[in-house]
Amino acid sequence: MNADSHADAILAADPARIERALEDIARRSLPGAGITRWGYSQLEREAHELFAAHFRALGLECRTDAAGNTIATLPGTDPALAHLGTGSHLDSVPHGGRFDGIAGSVAAMEVARMLVHAGIRPRRSIRFVAFATEEGARFGQACLGSRMIAGLTSAEDLDALEDRDGVTAADALRGVGLDPACVHEARWHPGEVEAFIELHIEQGGILAASKTPIGVVDVISGSTRLAIDLTGTASHTGGTPMYQRADALAAAAAVVLTAERVANDNRHRGTRISVGKIDVEPGSITTIPGFCRVYVDVRDVDPRRQRDTANEVISAAHSIAQERGVGVTAKLLADTSPVTLPLAVQRHIVDAAASMGLGYRVMPSGASHDTQMIDRVCRGGMVFVPSLNGGVSHAPDEYSLATDIARGTDVLVRALLSIDAASESGWM
Amino acid sequence: MNADSHADAILAADPARIERALEDIARRSLPGAGITRWGYSQLEREAHELFAAHFRALGLECRTDAAGNTIATLPGTDPALAHLGTGSHLDSVPHGGRFDGIAGSVAAMEVARMLVHAGIRPRRSIRFVAFATEEGARFGQACLGSRMIAGLTSAEDLDALEDRDGVTAADALRGVGLDPACVHEARWHPGEVEAFIELHIEQGGILAASKTPIGVVDVISGSTRLAIDLTGTASHTGGTPMYQRADALAAAAAVVLTAERVANDNRHRGTRISVGKIDVEPGSITTIPGFCRVYVDVRDVDPRRQRDTANEVISAAHSIAQERGVGVTAKLLADTSPVTLPLAVQRHIVDAAASMGLGYRVMPSGASHDTQMIDRVCRGGMVFVPSLNGGVSHAPDEYSLATDIARGTDVLVRALLSIDAASESGWM
Repeated sequence: MNADSHADAILAADPARIERALEDIARRSLPGAGITRWGYSQLEREAHELFAAHFRALGLECRTDAAGNTIATLPGTDPALAHLGTGSHLDSVPHGGRFDGIAGSVAAMEVARMLVHAGIRPRRSIRFVAFATEEGARFGQACLGSRMIAGLTSAEDLDALEDRDGVTAADALRGVGLDPACVHEARWHPGEVEAFIELHIEQGGILAASKTPIGVVDVISGSTRLAIDLTGTASHTGGTPMYQRADALAAAAAVVLTAERVANDNRHRGTRISVGKIDVEPGSITTIPGFCRVYVDVRDVDPRRQRDTANEVISAAHSIAQERGVGVTAKLLADTSPVTLPLAVQRHIVDAAASMGLGYRVMPSGASHDTQMIDRVCRGGMVFVPSLNGGVSHAPDEYSLATDIARGTDVLVRALLSIDAASESGWM
Repeated sequence: MNADSHADAILAADPARIERALEDIARRSLPGAGITRWGYSQLEREAHELFAAHFRALGLECRTDAAGNTIATLPGTDPALAHLGTGSHLDSVPHGGRFDGIAGSVAAMEVARMLVHAGIRPRRSIRFVAFATEEGARFGQACLGSRMIAGLTSAEDLDALEDRDGVTAADALRGVGLDPACVHEARWHPGEVEAFIELHIEQGGILAASKTPIGVVDVISGSTRLAIDLTGTASHTGGTPMYQRADALAAAAAVVLTAERVANDNRHRGTRISVGKIDVEPGSITTIPGFCRVYVDVRDVDPRRQRDTANEVISAAHSIAQERGVGVTAKLLADTSPVTLPLAVQRHIVDAAASMGLGYRVMPSGASHDTQMIDRVCRGGMVFVPSLNGGVSHAPDEYSLATDIARGTDVLVRALLSIDAASESGWM
């Protein structure tokens, strides 16, 4: 059976199924505003179980690898060929949304259902993946599951990463029944997978504003994450005159505003610098803060500008600290380069959209994604679907329509089948 | 027996006893740097038990009032006379020091011991008081125990005060076996107590720098405490361009620096403005903060300037918020006026110091104290002893010498006895 010829007629993702799957996963959340489903938590594992159960119900084999990634496989007709893959992640930032990562995981579920129900058997096996712990919110380092697939994070690295309660990533893996000593077993070897396409919400407002249903990502921003520690002198807010202070929070405030200023100056047009988190000690209304940690996230599509900007923030923090008589140290929490995705995969996505008469836009991704890591061991591509509410993401207001996700899923399945139908080298 | 004539010969506070009592109380702390003994916590109650046990061992009656203040009484020879009093508090800020409040409580213990051991029976009964929950660190409002003695805080007020876990002050009282509905019973009626003198560490570096052993407080700073809430839009740090942001933390940083600038300008010389605490939500490295609460503490010896300054900070926050497209609301957490202490009590302290050949300095207090509240129902006075380490307080480095506390205690007992020895109206 020739998959390509059947596609247009049979394959249409079902928005109602997508809606229900999103709903099921959204229920696995800590209480509070929005969704809180930390990486390597019991709730993330429950979401992975839902994901796995879907594929098993379709009759597909499904396993959890040593890094906690859940991978189902639809066997291809030619076992000698490198696989294709699709999927995303199931964890969230604290008080985040229902769509970031979930949309792409649910799209993978729907792709498998469509292919199985249509009786389409591709030549290449297709892997459906829910990556573990994509969000950097817990350990500072994003994309842990996909990094271990790509061999970018090792067992030793997991010992060095800590969450805010001092739990290491290695402990967190153990806590959900994984053995950090075995994570090297999660690696995909070069040639094992040919191409991987991830569907994701845009997390920005460009597609919605331009009424474009499909985004085709050409470059994924890199991110440099810093912890800047400022050490002043904790003292009584009443007893300490202004001129005798070494106020760590006032210094931190100056760092926050300087980071913003650096991002807004002309040399950095396109760079985004954010401080999303700040630790203040002792954190009492009647004590001048003696210590602050400022968490800085620098994002850029230009790797050189990304690192230069991070260094500029660090040296500004040193000047501020010197002026204010406080100590300063800067620590690199994580550093990921921007990735330019291969044109070949973009082309198959573009052709799939065009074949359905859907408008598309080739665009960069401001956020990091698992595909950025997976691209090291295969050819990566990304399909964006519109984010509504002005593109807000990592927040309870994050919103995308199930019909938009379904259209993206239609493009996704066609792009995969079109790579599958092409000759082994001819698709590129 | 005439107390006054015996004093110089017999009454000498014992630094070793003071040291041991400080040590005993310091052991009642949560783990971590410095001392953490929250108001209305089990640990604070244990410290009050130690305090009470000391007086009971001396044969004095000791009770805990409806507000959790522990009060021992040395009966005077003339039950018709209004009482005298001394004491301080036993709670601490988080990661605070061993001396703030404790020095004055231990001084009261030592005054009682000296009088009982010397067989001195004053005409007026003397109350030895450990006030409950003086620090505003838990509930925003400082001096809860002494405010209830002065009738400034009612049962209804206790329902409105919350700690960071959402526990109300009323619940906290219940948690340590007190009934918030009865706190009016803690009130001291006008005429019940004649004068109250509190020994306290200076919490500033002036006495140590000028090698002056005794401070005599003339005015206690007032404090206005604000919570300024800034509401922006939580969103993805990668996906959100700089120009589309409404970053609550950047706005908060601008408020912190503006508060500092206001305190440092010439019109406010002597005003101290501090931001000791800031809440950031959701507090994730990859999410632009959608909400920040900035806790502002304004201290001044001039009540008008204090309130004008607080209003100036609020209107600056409004300008910042408007400029940045974030919402702002300001809430008054607590407001206490500066208090000028009566000259009569100052004079008895000065005379006591002079009679011992000790240097003294009349000085304002930057910090709030229970005496500020007690002064509403009797005549208040304060003896300061030197703070070392540059005067640092509310921090683990807070330090005073037991010998300095002992000298302050010698002055304290003499000032009390000198008021006691004077005629009922003649002491003023």
